[in-house]
Amino acid sequence: MTHTADRSEASPLPLCPSALLTDHCATLLAARGLPAMEAETVAQSLVHANLRGVDSHGVTRMPIYIDRLERGIVNPRPDIGIAHDRGATLSIDGDNGMGAVVASRALDLALDRVETHGSVTVGIHNSNHYGSGAYYAEKATRHDTVAFLYSNAPPTMAPWGGVDPYLGTNPYTFAAPAGRFPPIMLDMATSVVARGKIIMAANAGKPIPPGWAIDRDGVETRDALAALEGSVLPFGGAKGYGIAMMIDMMAGVMTGAAFGPRIGDLYKTLDVPQNVGVFIHLVHAGAFQPAEAFKRRMDEMIREIKANRPARGVEEVMVPGEIEARMAERRARDGIPLPVELVDQLDRLASPDMSSLGRALGLDGHRPEETER
Amino acid sequence: MTHTADRSEASPLPLCPSALLTDHCATLLAARGLPAMEAETVAQSLVHANLRGVDSHGVTRMPIYIDRLERGIVNPRPDIGIAHDRGATLSIDGDNGMGAVVASRALDLALDRVETHGSVTVGIHNSNHYGSGAYYAEKATRHDTVAFLYSNAPPTMAPWGGVDPYLGTNPYTFAAPAGRFPPIMLDMATSVVARGKIIMAANAGKPIPPGWAIDRDGVETRDALAALEGSVLPFGGAKGYGIAMMIDMMAGVMTGAAFGPRIGDLYKTLDVPQNVGVFIHLVHAGAFQPAEAFKRRMDEMIREIKANRPARGVEEVMVPGEIEARMAERRARDGIPLPVELVDQLDRLASPDMSSLGRALGLDGHRPEETER
Repeated sequence: MTHTADRSEASPLPLCPSALLTDHCATLLAARGLPAMEAETVAQSLVHANLRGVDSHGVTRMPIYIDRLERGIVNPRPDIGIAHDRGATLSIDGDNGMGAVVASRALDLALDRVETHGSVTVGIHNSNHYGSGAYYAEKATRHDTVAFLYSNAPPTMAPWGGVDPYLGTNPYTFAAPAGRFPPIMLDMATSVVARGKIIMAANAGKPIPPGWAIDRDGVETRDALAALEGSVLPFGGAKGYGIAMMIDMMAGVMTGAAFGPRIGDLYKTLDVPQNVGVFIHLVHAGAFQPAEAFKRRMDEMIREIKANRPARGVEEVMVPGEIEARMAERRARDGIPLPVELVDQLDRLASPDMSSLGRALGLDGHRPEETER
Repeated sequence: MTHTADRSEASPLPLCPSALLTDHCATLLAARGLPAMEAETVAQSLVHANLRGVDSHGVTRMPIYIDRLERGIVNPRPDIGIAHDRGATLSIDGDNGMGAVVASRALDLALDRVETHGSVTVGIHNSNHYGSGAYYAEKATRHDTVAFLYSNAPPTMAPWGGVDPYLGTNPYTFAAPAGRFPPIMLDMATSVVARGKIIMAANAGKPIPPGWAIDRDGVETRDALAALEGSVLPFGGAKGYGIAMMIDMMAGVMTGAAFGPRIGDLYKTLDVPQNVGVFIHLVHAGAFQPAEAFKRRMDEMIREIKANRPARGVEEVMVPGEIEARMAERRARDGIPLPVELVDQLDRLASPDMSSLGRALGLDGHRPEETER
C-alpha cells in the first residue's frame, strides 16, 4: 500500500491510491441509492479531477453530493430518456439525475453513433453539477472523437459593464485526440479565477491580484471582502463575457434547462433541483478525412508548437492539458494527496460496516510513514 | 443621394450608400471573372463589415482581393464540391475560390438541411480569406439557426510561453437569433488586438498599452517596433491561446486545410493559394424545443442582462453585437464613411466605362457638402 507523502506538495499529505479512493466514494454513493455502475461513474468523475491535479473539482464534492441525495433533491435512479432523436441531434432529459450519470449516459449514446453521422449534437436538461468536463471529453478522445462540452452554472459573474452576478463561471471544455501525444485538453472556467480563490484570500486576510473582481459599485478591487460583495470578472474582458454568455445560451436557453439566475446553487439551493443544462458537440476524427490522418496532423501541430522558441524564463512551451496529463500520470503511480480533514469527512459519511479510508492510509492517530517509491 | 459627413467620426468623411458601394465592388469583381451572383456575395460580405463599423474587414480588402484574382492565385469560378456527405456532416472542397463565395455556398447547403437534422457540421478546405464571420453567422440567424464559425489565419501569434508566431489571430464567431431583439453576435479575434493596431502605433511613434504583445525575447513590451519583431498576445492569456489553437485544430487540422505556418498570408503569399480552412457548426433554434420557445427565452435572457445594474461610469449594459447592430442601423440609413483615399483606390480599380464612385459622392475635387438627414 502506498501512503507516502507527496514531496511536491506544500506539506506532506497522505497519498491515496486512486482505485481505493474511487471504491470508497462509489460505496458511499451506492449506500444512498445509486445503482453500482452509476455510483462508480460519479466516483470516477471526481477522482479523475483529483488525478489531473484539479482538486477543487474532485472528491471534495462528495459531502455536498451525498447531502443532496439524502435531502432527496437529486434523483439517485433517474430514468434518463431521449426526448427527441434526429440521428445526429439528440435531446436528453436527465430526470434530475446526478450530473456525471446523466452526462455519461448522453455521451455514450452520442459516441455510439458519431462515426456513422460524422458529428453529433446533444442537449441535456434536468441535470445537476457534473464536475469537471475533462472527464467526459477525455472519454470521447479515446473513441477518436473531438468533444466540445458547455455546462452552465449558478450566477457568480456580472455581464460586462454590469455589477450583479447573472452568469455562472460557465466552464468551457474542448478535447481532441492526437496520435503519439496525449489528447489536447482545454477545460476552464470562463471567469479569471474561481470565486473559491477569492474566498480563500478573504479568509486569509490577503488582497487579491488586479483584474480578478469588481466591488458592489462595479469598480475593480483588490480587497477580497469587497470582491465577494461584487462579482468575479470574465477572462479576457468583454470577449470572455461573450464566451460565458454563449455557454449559457447553448447549455441553458437552447436545451430547455435553467439559465442565468434560475440555475440552482450546488451548495445553497437545497429545496429544488438545480436544472443544470449541458450542450455537447462531438466530431469524429474521421469526419472529413481518415481518422489516422487527423491524428498524424495533430501530432505535427503539437510537435511544432512544442518546438517553438521559449520566452525568457520559460522552460518549455506547453499545449493545453499537458500539465494536467503529467500530473495524472504521477498521481496514478504515487497516489492522490488528500488533506487529513477530507479523509475524515469521507470516513464520517461511511456506514459502520465500511472499511475506514483513514485506517487504510495509516492515519489512525499517527502521521503516515515515508515509504520508498 | 446622401453624401453627408458622418458627424460621429473623427473627421468628416464622405458617406457612401451601402447599395452603391456594394454595386461598385461587385462590378470590380465581375470584371475579374467572378459570376455576377458570386461577385455580389463577396461585395456584400465586405460592405456588411463596413455597415457594422468593422472597417478593417470591409471594402479596404478590395485591392488585395483584386490583386490576387489578377495574379491567378484565387479561382474566380471555383467548382465547389461536397467531398463527403453524411447528412448532418459535410466536407466542402472550396476549389481555391474566394472565401466569401465558398463559405456562402457551404452555409447555404447546410442551412437547407439544418431544420431536418437539428444540427449540421461543415468542414471547408481549399478556401481563402473570408472577411468577417459575422456576415455568415447573421445569415444563419435569419433562418432561426445558431451558428459557430471558426476560420484559421496565417501565423502572427506565438503559442503561450513561446516567442515565434505560429497561430493566426484565428477569429471566433458565434451568433444566436432572438425574438424581439437583434441576434447576439460574437465575432472576435483570439488575439488581444489585431496586429494592424500595433503597426499603426509604430507608424505614429506611439507606445502600445500593456498586455498587447511580447518582444523577440518573449518579454512583454510597450514598444510597438519591438512588438512587431515579437508576437501579439492571445486574449485572456493561456485560455485565449487554447481557444486560438482549438480554432486551428478544427478549421485546419480537422478539415484537411492548411494549419499553423502552412497557411498563406493574404498580403505576402502571392505565389500559392492560402488553403484557409473553415469549420461551421449550425444548430437550429428548434433542435430541442419549438424554435419560438428558444427565441422567447433568448429575449428573456437579453432583457435580464440589459436590466443589470451598470457599473460606475457605465451608461448601459450591452450584449455581444449590440454596438455593431446599432452602427449598422445608422450606416444603413446615413451611408458608410469612406476615406477619400479608399474611394480613389476603388475608382482606380474600375474600368473606364464604369461610373466613378468619387463622382457619385461629389468628390470631384471638392469636399462633400453637408446635407440634412
